[in-house]
Amino acid sequence: MAMKLLVINGPNLNFLGIREKSVYGTEDYGYLKSLIQEKAIKENITVDIFQSNSEGNIIDRIQEAYYDGTQGIIINPGAFTHYSYAIRDALASLTVPIIEVHISNIHKREEFRHNSVTAPVCTGQIVGLGLKGYLFAIDALLSQ
Amino acid sequence: MAMKLLVINGPNLNFLGIREKSVYGTEDYGYLKSLIQEKAIKENITVDIFQSNSEGNIIDRIQEAYYDGTQGIIINPGAFTHYSYAIRDALASLTVPIIEVHISNIHKREEFRHNSVTAPVCTGQIVGLGLKGYLFAIDALLSQ
Amino acid sequence: MAMKLLVINGPNLNFLGIREKSVYGTEDYGYLKSLIQEKAIKENITVDIFQSNSEGNIIDRIQEAYYDGTQGIIINPGAFTHYSYAIRDALASLTVPIIEVHISNIHKREEFRHNSVTAPVCTGQIVGLGLKGYLFAIDALLSQ
Amino acid sequence: MAMKLLVINGPNLNFLGIREKSVYGTEDYGYLKSLIQEKAIKENITVDIFQSNSEGNIIDRIQEAYYDGTQGIIINPGAFTHYSYAIRDALASLTVPIIEVHISNIHKREEFRHNSVTAPVCTGQIVGLGLKGYLFAIDALLSQ
Amino acid sequence: MAMKLLVINGPNLNFLGIREKSVYGTEDYGYLKSLIQEKAIKENITVDIFQSNSEGNIIDRIQEAYYDGTQGIIINPGAFTHYSYAIRDALASLTVPIIEVHISNIHKREEFRHNSVTAPVCTGQIVGLGLKGYLFAIDALLSQ
Amino acid sequence: MAMKLLVINGPNLNFLGIREKSVYGTEDYGYLKSLIQEKAIKENITVDIFQSNSEGNIIDRIQEAYYDGTQGIIINPGAFTHYSYAIRDALASLTVPIIEVHISNIHKREEFRHNSVTAPVCTGQIVGLGLKGYLFAIDALLSQ
Amino acid sequence: MAMKLLVINGPNLNFLGIREKSVYGTEDYGYLKSLIQEKAIKENITVDIFQSNSEGNIIDRIQEAYYDGTQGIIINPGAFTHYSYAIRDALASLTVPIIEVHISNIHKREEFRHNSVTAPVCTGQIVGLGLKGYLFAIDALLSQ
Amino acid sequence: MAMKLLVINGPNLNFLGIREKSVYGTEDYGYLKSLIQEKAIKENITVDIFQSNSEGNIIDRIQEAYYDGTQGIIINPGAFTHYSYAIRDALASLTVPIIEVHISNIHKREEFRHNSVTAPVCTGQIVGLGLKGYLFAIDALLSQ
Amino acid sequence: MAMKLLVINGPNLNFLGIREKSVYGTEDYGYLKSLIQEKAIKENITVDIFQSNSEGNIIDRIQEAYYDGTQGIIINPGAFTHYSYAIRDALASLTVPIIEVHISNIHKREEFRHNSVTAPVCTGQIVGLGLKGYLFAIDALLSQ
Amino acid sequence: MAMKLLVINGPNLNFLGIREKSVYGTEDYGYLKSLIQEKAIKENITVDIFQSNSEGNIIDRIQEAYYDGTQGIIINPGAFTHYSYAIRDALASLTVPIIEVHISNIHKREEFRHNSVTAPVCTGQIVGLGLKGYLFAIDALLSQ
Amino acid sequence: MAMKLLVINGPNLNFLGIREKSVYGTEDYGYLKSLIQEKAIKENITVDIFQSNSEGNIIDRIQEAYYDGTQGIIINPGAFTHYSYAIRDALASLTVPIIEVHISNIHKREEFRHNSVTAPVCTGQIVGLGLKGYLFAIDALLSQ
Amino acid sequence: MAMKLLVINGPNLNFLGIREKSVYGTEDYGYLKSLIQEKAIKENITVDIFQSNSEGNIIDRIQEAYYDGTQGIIINPGAFTHYSYAIRDALASLTVPIIEVHISNIHKREEFRHNSVTAPVCTGQIVGLGLKGYLFAIDALLSQ
Repeated sequence: MAMKLLVINGPNLNFLGIREKSVYGTEDYGYLKSLIQEKAIKENITVDIFQSNSEGNIIDRIQEAYYDGTQGIIINPGAFTHYSYAIRDALASLTVPIIEVHISNIHKREEFRHNSVTAPVCTGQIVGLGLKGYLFAIDALLSQ
Repeated sequence: MAMKLLVINGPNLNFLGIREKSVYGTEDYGYLKSLIQEKAIKENITVDIFQSNSEGNIIDRIQEAYYDGTQGIIINPGAFTHYSYAIRDALASLTVPIIEVHISNIHKREEFRHNSVTAPVCTGQIVGLGLKGYLFAIDALLSQ
Repeated sequence: MAMKLLVINGPNLNFLGIREKSVYGTEDYGYLKSLIQEKAIKENITVDIFQSNSEGNIIDRIQEAYYDGTQGIIINPGAFTHYSYAIRDALASLTVPIIEVHISNIHKREEFRHNSVTAPVCTGQIVGLGLKGYLFAIDALLSQ
Repeated sequence: MAMKLLVINGPNLNFLGIREKSVYGTEDYGYLKSLIQEKAIKENITVDIFQSNSEGNIIDRIQEAYYDGTQGIIINPGAFTHYSYAIRDALASLTVPIIEVHISNIHKREEFRHNSVTAPVCTGQIVGLGLKGYLFAIDALLSQ
Repeated sequence: MAMKLLVINGPNLNFLGIREKSVYGTEDYGYLKSLIQEKAIKENITVDIFQSNSEGNIIDRIQEAYYDGTQGIIINPGAFTHYSYAIRDALASLTVPIIEVHISNIHKREEFRHNSVTAPVCTGQIVGLGLKGYLFAIDALLSQ
Repeated sequence: MAMKLLVINGPNLNFLGIREKSVYGTEDYGYLKSLIQEKAIKENITVDIFQSNSEGNIIDRIQEAYYDGTQGIIINPGAFTHYSYAIRDALASLTVPIIEVHISNIHKREEFRHNSVTAPVCTGQIVGLGLKGYLFAIDALLSQ
Repeated sequence: MAMKLLVINGPNLNFLGIREKSVYGTEDYGYLKSLIQEKAIKENITVDIFQSNSEGNIIDRIQEAYYDGTQGIIINPGAFTHYSYAIRDALASLTVPIIEVHISNIHKREEFRHNSVTAPVCTGQIVGLGLKGYLFAIDALLSQ
Repeated sequence: MAMKLLVINGPNLNFLGIREKSVYGTEDYGYLKSLIQEKAIKENITVDIFQSNSEGNIIDRIQEAYYDGTQGIIINPGAFTHYSYAIRDALASLTVPIIEVHISNIHKREEFRHNSVTAPVCTGQIVGLGLKGYLFAIDALLSQ
Repeated sequence: MAMKLLVINGPNLNFLGIREKSVYGTEDYGYLKSLIQEKAIKENITVDIFQSNSEGNIIDRIQEAYYDGTQGIIINPGAFTHYSYAIRDALASLTVPIIEVHISNIHKREEFRHNSVTAPVCTGQIVGLGLKGYLFAIDALLSQ
Repeated sequence: MAMKLLVINGPNLNFLGIREKSVYGTEDYGYLKSLIQEKAIKENITVDIFQSNSEGNIIDRIQEAYYDGTQGIIINPGAFTHYSYAIRDALASLTVPIIEVHISNIHKREEFRHNSVTAPVCTGQIVGLGLKGYLFAIDALLSQ
Repeated sequence: MAMKLLVINGPNLNFLGIREKSVYGTEDYGYLKSLIQEKAIKENITVDIFQSNSEGNIIDRIQEAYYDGTQGIIINPGAFTHYSYAIRDALASLTVPIIEVHISNIHKREEFRHNSVTAPVCTGQIVGLGLKGYLFAIDALLSQ
Repeated sequence: MAMKLLVINGPNLNFLGIREKSVYGTEDYGYLKSLIQEKAIKENITVDIFQSNSEGNIIDRIQEAYYDGTQGIIINPGAFTHYSYAIRDALASLTVPIIEVHISNIHKREEFRHNSVTAPVCTGQIVGLGLKGYLFAIDALLSQ
């Protein structure tokens, strides 16, 4: 049976291609989704892609993953990366591997973006490799 | 007329028995709810139990308590304990007694869990006494 | 055509006149809304007033403003002022002028209220001028 | 045989009813002792109540508890809460359950009272519930 | 009788239009003064405008305002905003309303400009609205 | 009837003239006591002089002062100045005036000696005036 | 020949009796000056009293004292206490004894008033003894 | 012509399989090198692998890369990650893409391992994906 | 005549073999004393061993050493190591050599145990060498 | 035409040779001025030397330099170096090269002297080279 | 067979007797080596003594110890004590006992010398006992 | 005989003209060396110029200077400026004058470049005067 992965994108990632193009590039969120789904087809896996601006909805979706057979998670928590201990706690409930992804190199940006409160409960982190970071994360989950 | 209390549980408390069992024990959230309702029956009071992973929903519920005749609140804000100044502001609007409860001893855990931004606007705090902490909190509200 | 502005009020602002009257005064939220709409009529502009206790809903509303022709934003993020990097990111997506408003003088209050994580992505900030702060903010947007 | 508990009160608690009445109330230390002994009779247990202004004497008493069959400890370390690592070490020698009690809500008071160096080696903590906090602590020890 | 206001400008504000034009714009200090006086005429009030590079002279002028019938103060303390506790103390002697004004958005600039030691003793603060900030401050004083 | 004062000297003050002579001078503790008693005779008052190396004993003595008719206290808490919140709490129980005295100028010495946790609950503080500091403190209590 | 002392009062001390009466009392600056001059007559010494709101003027006056035969200085630097390293350097040039005086107990007030940058270069410090603090400082200089 | 990459491993990486096996696994450094070279063959590129325990040697090697036609760098600076501003400066001289790799999730380990002083001058960072992290880094460089 | 040394053990060291065996080992305090006395016999010296849980008693004992001919001190201040500036001051009164001993490696334990306020006034420090640390300290004093 | 330079000396530099001779040497301020003027003659340039103890006067003089044809500035801000953001702002208005000079090595002195708030807006800084530092600064300005 | 130990001395220790004689004494590095070798002969063991100013060489030597049968290490990392996480990692690879030695009492010196980043991975630490500290360390290793 | 000076350049200075040209200019390291040697010829002195990317080699070279008759040192420690306490210790061994040079104004750059751990043991420091800074440093050494 096909492996089942979950991609979670946090607040403002639906504004890819609109917000801070010099940082995130000009491709929009639809393009990111198609990139991931093409990869899914190629790898013969199922990937569910979820985006929300609400912290509570993201926690709900992580908790659903506990029940729905998700075998790996890729999460870009957006700005929640830097303060959401509640998302951290939710991720810590799961036992499947989790990769944190950031499109831009957060270490090159504002001070507050340098620290991740969610990374300590993830398996690994991919930073600054652009939209391709999501694809490398899928490779990483496949090779676990 | 029977006293009317409100129990609010924050993010991830619905995952009791799933998340970090070594910290929180193996009893699940349904068990916690039945424990509280049994106590309510024994004390001849009404207790409404509310859980949400969403900060906004919790604030909405606290504000409802202003109108619905709630006479005391027990809140376990979960990870919001450590950063939700918005929940703090909502609690500060009310004049009924409020007890903050934590199932585990937060002082034995990660550094970020040692500080509570909500405790300064509560009447008191019960920490580390397990699920029974909720029951002692009911006793405390009854004896005010 | 009439200028179109958006006023966003964050958590607990719907409790104006109920919460901490010594800080915020006794006029309620309905009064604030009527004050703003009277000004709108006088200035012959359209003002949409939005309030939510939920961070996600506020981000969604900011993102809508990108599409709906809003020409300026007045935001009082309430307690989110001090930690919501997600609202900051959402505001940073827009190119219209944004004025941050605080009814009370946050510099006279608790230490945690002195810092604003949203102000650096706004055009300006009006602090401590009471409900009239919203009206001055409208003037400021009109004169941009 | 009756359960045997020990209550330890740190510096200045013998000045209850004299010192800072607006914080601690007007009931004096004799009243607190009688409240605890009434509870002991009701629960059919033995409670030894000890008070000292001296850190060394408190450590001595904790060490005695190792030998004298004490089955649970309630401690209000007073101001020692905030800096006595020596009392912390003494408490850590014991294996019986320990509940830290504070009469007032220390989180509402001066900054230096927000941190407890002894709480991390206790089982739990009850804060801000007044003199009744001691009685809830007895309940908590009985239910362990 | 006409209301009497005082505008105090701190160090380097006389170099408007010369210094850091990208931050403060190209209009010079004479223009700012005429803008304020036109507003005074329109509102039928008296406004005295004072500028000094000297902390001591500014304190002297604030103290004169205690005796000369000044009914409201607008102050842009320039760099003194960030360290002059002496000006803060002088402002705190007065009982008339005081509005602190900053032409640029100090929250977007160097870290040391984010904190104001004078704001806690003012009625309110207007930041980042350009030269018009002074006019809104007059409106605010008129509406007190 | 003669006024009754209490002088409390904390740890190591009995080693005056032995310890760090370059800081404290060569006169010994007996000399300090005679200096104070001569002043008492001259001013026609009673002064009780107490010294202990033990924090608990000092607290006990402060509490006795509550009962024994002491009308003013002079305290040199020695090194306890910098960390004994328990002595601070004891001093805060009393309503008589209290003067903190330090023989040497603590601001010229190691960083840890610059802060006093007891000064905020005293009436005033005399620093660096040598043994005469005690005599000026008596004058200050007499003139209250 | 009569001893010659200098009293320097920093910013806002000329507003004694006007500013923060609950802190400084209701007696005005003229009263303070007469109190000091009466003492001078009684002790048969000469005291020059100087007040300025300007840091530069205070430094100039301290430097004059190097030349004019001043044998001791009493300085209340007001808010400059907390940041004027320039006054500190000026005081450090002199070899006569210097007593720093504060009318109120600065340790009971805002955090920023707890630290003195000038005290480390003075002989001693008298804090919180009201206007009499100046008189005790004269006694201290006379007994050096 | 085949692309030419450089892999730089910092101090102690030659002790893979010896040092802290629970963190780094049991495969040794020879295995890591063969893994990378197999990948190089598969991708038809040239990879030079360099290891040194010496900060100076690593800087020398980075500078050589400026001259020898290297088209991309993968660097695991080991403990130098956390303090070698000198390696940071060397990396900043180059214009080819650079990926920082860490075998373990540094965010889960000691506090001092959470910060990277070299990441801000790299293109991206891959953390916690084990030895495969080097292979994903090669993929990332190939897709630039 | 035989050299005369003093060993001082601070709070909870009498609980050796009871408290935290994984840190301190299973040998009890009596064993430590006999180990030291055997060494004394072997080296033909006199060693007085003193233990107290009370800071004041420890200071008293250090002061006695000034008078009783003690020629060297070995002190393990237990938890007082980290905050007792009063013991530090007492040790600083003496001119004989002083060695601070810690049985466990305090640098491997909790953050608060890493700093010693007493070490700066000692001659040297021996850390983490178990009970034998006391014997090496005797050797060190003998070889001074 | 001769180049025109300005030397600005801040507070207490007129006390060269009087104040802290072990730090600044025994040559007085007149000697420094003659040293500079001799250099001016030798280099065939004009140098205006200005000294003030007043921050405001220094800012006034810097602003004059904007109008009077000054082609380079050498400034020793004395203690203002460490806190005068107002002088920093004034210097930042100018476009001519500015060299900050300190006679002593400020890095060897008190902690508060290690940081310069003015250096970031200067061209360069010369520290610890004695009075000759001014001459090297002239050389540096001549060679720009 | 004779026990085999390794002594590692970090940067500048070869300058014993040259550098800061008041701190380290006048005996030179040759003397230290002979002292250690005499002890080795007396104890009938082999000691290899290694010194380098280079962090990389020290790590190489530590790694060699993994292969060459070294049974215990004595290391004085010199200034690397305070920042070399790379040496710390190298030491952590080994399982033989390691004693950190400092000739002077680092707790009496500059703030930056108080912290050791290597001590947490050593068995124990000997501080301030002069050159003899190395000999006690040998004793400690022999008695493990 | 000709004076003998030593110039030491730390890591990456050999990449002058390659690395960060906007900061360091386009002249390369060969040019810097020739500039210094021309100056040496003009001043009739001997200058040895040494560069290394290795901390250990730099310390070795400093120690050689103790023996080889060097009469003054100019050092640009590059990034080692900010953390190499080992180089600091080596410099502190010498008694000849030492001038620290930085080509760029380090106070205008990243926060971590503002602090120098080597400056406190140097005679003086020249910052931000470009390559000429080395020449002024030679002048300074010649005039000692």
